[in-house]
Amino acid sequence: MQWPSKETLYTVIFGTETPAGRRFDLVLIVVILLSIGVLFLDSISAVRAQIGPLLYGLEWAFTLLFTLEYAVRIYCSQNRLAYLRSFYGLTDMLAVLPSYLVVFIPGASFLLMVRLIRVFRILRILKLIRYVNEANVLLRSLNQSRRKITVFFGSLFILVTLFGSLLYVVEGPEYGFTSIPVSIYWAIVTITTVGFGDITPQTPLGQGIAAVTMLMGYAIIAVPTGIISAELGRELRREYDSRHCPQCDKGGHERDAKFCKYCGGEMEFPSDDKKN
Amino acid sequence: MQWPSKETLYTVIFGTETPAGRRFDLVLIVVILLSIGVLFLDSISAVRAQIGPLLYGLEWAFTLLFTLEYAVRIYCSQNRLAYLRSFYGLTDMLAVLPSYLVVFIPGASFLLMVRLIRVFRILRILKLIRYVNEANVLLRSLNQSRRKITVFFGSLFILVTLFGSLLYVVEGPEYGFTSIPVSIYWAIVTITTVGFGDITPQTPLGQGIAAVTMLMGYAIIAVPTGIISAELGRELRREYDSRHCPQCDKGGHERDAKFCKYCGGEMEFPSDDKKN
Amino acid sequence: MQWPSKETLYTVIFGTETPAGRRFDLVLIVVILLSIGVLFLDSISAVRAQIGPLLYGLEWAFTLLFTLEYAVRIYCSQNRLAYLRSFYGLTDMLAVLPSYLVVFIPGASFLLMVRLIRVFRILRILKLIRYVNEANVLLRSLNQSRRKITVFFGSLFILVTLFGSLLYVVEGPEYGFTSIPVSIYWAIVTITTVGFGDITPQTPLGQGIAAVTMLMGYAIIAVPTGIISAELGRELRREYDSRHCPQCDKGGHERDAKFCKYCGGEMEFPSDDKKN
Amino acid sequence: MQWPSKETLYTVIFGTETPAGRRFDLVLIVVILLSIGVLFLDSISAVRAQIGPLLYGLEWAFTLLFTLEYAVRIYCSQNRLAYLRSFYGLTDMLAVLPSYLVVFIPGASFLLMVRLIRVFRILRILKLIRYVNEANVLLRSLNQSRRKITVFFGSLFILVTLFGSLLYVVEGPEYGFTSIPVSIYWAIVTITTVGFGDITPQTPLGQGIAAVTMLMGYAIIAVPTGIISAELGRELRREYDSRHCPQCDKGGHERDAKFCKYCGGEMEFPSDDKKN
Repeated sequence: MQWPSKETLYTVIFGTETPAGRRFDLVLIVVILLSIGVLFLDSISAVRAQIGPLLYGLEWAFTLLFTLEYAVRIYCSQNRLAYLRSFYGLTDMLAVLPSYLVVFIPGASFLLMVRLIRVFRILRILKLIRYVNEANVLLRSLNQSRRKITVFFGSLFILVTLFGSLLYVVEGPEYGFTSIPVSIYWAIVTITTVGFGDITPQTPLGQGIAAVTMLMGYAIIAVPTGIISAELGRELRREYDSRHCPQCDKGGHERDAKFCKYCGGEMEFPSDDKKN
Repeated sequence: MQWPSKETLYTVIFGTETPAGRRFDLVLIVVILLSIGVLFLDSISAVRAQIGPLLYGLEWAFTLLFTLEYAVRIYCSQNRLAYLRSFYGLTDMLAVLPSYLVVFIPGASFLLMVRLIRVFRILRILKLIRYVNEANVLLRSLNQSRRKITVFFGSLFILVTLFGSLLYVVEGPEYGFTSIPVSIYWAIVTITTVGFGDITPQTPLGQGIAAVTMLMGYAIIAVPTGIISAELGRELRREYDSRHCPQCDKGGHERDAKFCKYCGGEMEFPSDDKKN
Repeated sequence: MQWPSKETLYTVIFGTETPAGRRFDLVLIVVILLSIGVLFLDSISAVRAQIGPLLYGLEWAFTLLFTLEYAVRIYCSQNRLAYLRSFYGLTDMLAVLPSYLVVFIPGASFLLMVRLIRVFRILRILKLIRYVNEANVLLRSLNQSRRKITVFFGSLFILVTLFGSLLYVVEGPEYGFTSIPVSIYWAIVTITTVGFGDITPQTPLGQGIAAVTMLMGYAIIAVPTGIISAELGRELRREYDSRHCPQCDKGGHERDAKFCKYCGGEMEFPSDDKKN
Repeated sequence: MQWPSKETLYTVIFGTETPAGRRFDLVLIVVILLSIGVLFLDSISAVRAQIGPLLYGLEWAFTLLFTLEYAVRIYCSQNRLAYLRSFYGLTDMLAVLPSYLVVFIPGASFLLMVRLIRVFRILRILKLIRYVNEANVLLRSLNQSRRKITVFFGSLFILVTLFGSLLYVVEGPEYGFTSIPVSIYWAIVTITTVGFGDITPQTPLGQGIAAVTMLMGYAIIAVPTGIISAELGRELRREYDSRHCPQCDKGGHERDAKFCKYCGGEMEFPSDDKKN
């Protein structure tokens, strides 16, 4: 077997166009998920008591594998510094570094949690392979509504500060509202309709204010929903408008249209639909 | 009384067009609901203590009745293999099989739960009788937004993994976050705004991260809602556009329009409205 | 002071056009709210211990007042039978009847709860005075989406039956899932994201299925929201389209437009805006 | 250093156009947030035990600073009475008054909570600096849907009264439903899908009614969401329609369009985008 060239390696490891590149991505995603699974199992004390050494061995196997992959990525990058500094370069490093550090720094076992950053590594593959277009529509909508959502969260923070402080005054420490920050935490739990129930108002006045908090949370959830709905509706319309017939060049076709509704010519599909 | 022909039986049992076919469906739906009611009552220990034998008898009566119905369905099907392999053919079988199996396989009483599959049998009748068009609009919208919803759930899984792991590190087993999977379960309970309250963060840092989780869950519920709203709006517009005047053939009429708004001619109603 | 004629009485009591009619409605709404307030206070044992006799007296005063009003309404109705049989006629009767019945039927104190039906009496006044148009838009939207919402709830019932039964099998009575109906109650609490926390799954498999239930509930809330949004958007567009310029007769004007955007002529306001 | 003129002071303190005015606003917002932070820390008993005197000193320093600012604002206002009576004039006064009052009125320490009104002072700065346009779109949408939301909340109040009263009758005081107001509080907790779990129905009938309450709350959240979505969609369309090309004067351009889609001329950006 011949040793692959730097260019071939680059195409396989970074690219997704060739069959070999796709196969590599598929194997990588499975290995990442397995390594996360090992982390999960390792956190369950009953499981660790039984197969702890096995998990420890697997963990080191994955670490060495990811280290090798990281080294090859650096080796075959055209612009190494750009790769090292990129978001993906950093997650690749943070996915292996903690395992080595805990060997040298005793008691730093909390560093092992940093390995969970491997979850982010899946993003790269997801991003490259498939749902690019769909995710872009969502992200563009979120980006367009960024400022409205900021205004919404700003108002929400003022509301929870006021309601939390009110309940701190009305209920007080004897009913669990031990400080203003804790009361604001309660107000967030309540206004988002989560409602854990670990802290609940007991006085009639406190329950009345809590009821107002809930009704407000119940009603204003409509605001971010309305914002996203409106922007997403616009994005979708724009997306459809951007489909043009290759024969008569008229736009505004449905996403699943196979033929132009004006001239009957066959439509082309956008690139992300072809990939299926 | 004459024995009905195979064709007559088929029309009555599988069809919904004739009065006899509808009457059969109505009786069948009532019997199915009754048999499910018996299963429910049988699970309440106080009720079983009192009328257990009666419920047992009823259960066998329903099983025999459904077995008879299944046999007749096989008998009068034009393509028997197609029926046996179809979704409805399988649910029909699974609705009766467990009751017979538990007689032969002792201790397999969990098989009895499979009888709950009878719930699915109602679907057939609902599907045939009425809300076909409405359900289709909903299903088409869900289908159109399938990929966006996949992206949304993918992001949600990454979020709950990160927040769950964070709280496992911050709170730890002494506050109920006994392992990463349990912490992820907590993160799902929190981000979906369910908030059971069986596991709650107690440290200030944990409560702060929990507050971020809740606010995120409160805000991003807007995303699936926006997706469905936008798609459903499009589906509804398409549905209206597809109503055409039988006189002048122009489209875009309101669902409840009785006369064409362009030529004044009387409109026809879509078939699912006629059936009322 | 002259005794008012039957017609005058009718105008005052049933009408809302004259100043006297409005004043009567305003007084009536205040009296109804006061009588409901008395019912509320009477249910708080600490309050009843202190001012029980006063509340009892007030309750009888309100009952006599409503009886008088009921008698006058019957007296001045043009079509008495129609009034007696109408929704409002029945609520008027049920608002006073229980108080008399408990005198004759000892131990029937639960009948007193029927008096809460007085809440419905407010509806009449609200309906007549103000928000007619707005409520109609909402009701029309709900009515248009009636069938889709039925389909949605039908699917929801099948889902909660399945998930409830699954958790009954997986968790069983030792973790609070004492019967299938109770488990279905739990599934409803979970899928609607209420999450009381009185019954929670404890086994890993149960928590996994519960997580799926929650994510499903979190995602499908988008469906009714999308339905209502889409229908309401259509209703609003129709409402705007129905505003026509009195000069050039062109439609499609904004609700708050003061001048026609085509000919500059002054617009008339719809009747429900005039009443402010 | 020369003493600044009244006009210069006014421009710096009230204005946001000059660099000095912006710098003043930035410093002010930081000081306000710090003073709120001191209030929060002061409410945590563990923190107060340690650095109580320091917090007390800081609190007085902030009070004196805000008093000075208030005095200067009065001094340099063109219309002093208008300022004193304005919303911001009142919050400025209420931000400092309580600290002085508690010195003279012993035991009135609850007055200190009024200092939380300083949160509102941030509004002024937010309002002036940035998100004016975005907040206006949201507020206009909320204002347009004011009446529909009133109708919605009116219906909600009737619903929670009915369901709360029903559960008071069905469950009664032995299961925590101690009075009708408490039961209505429970109904609000349930219908808004908060679900604390401090009060939960235990009887089968109570759980059945609770299930209906939840499903209703789950479904009708669609109503305010639909209202806001529909109005916001209209507001956004109106906002885009109001962007006109400075060359050909045609409207309807996208918010981020850089060139006119009709004549290709360069577009101007709305004023709130320029300020970034």
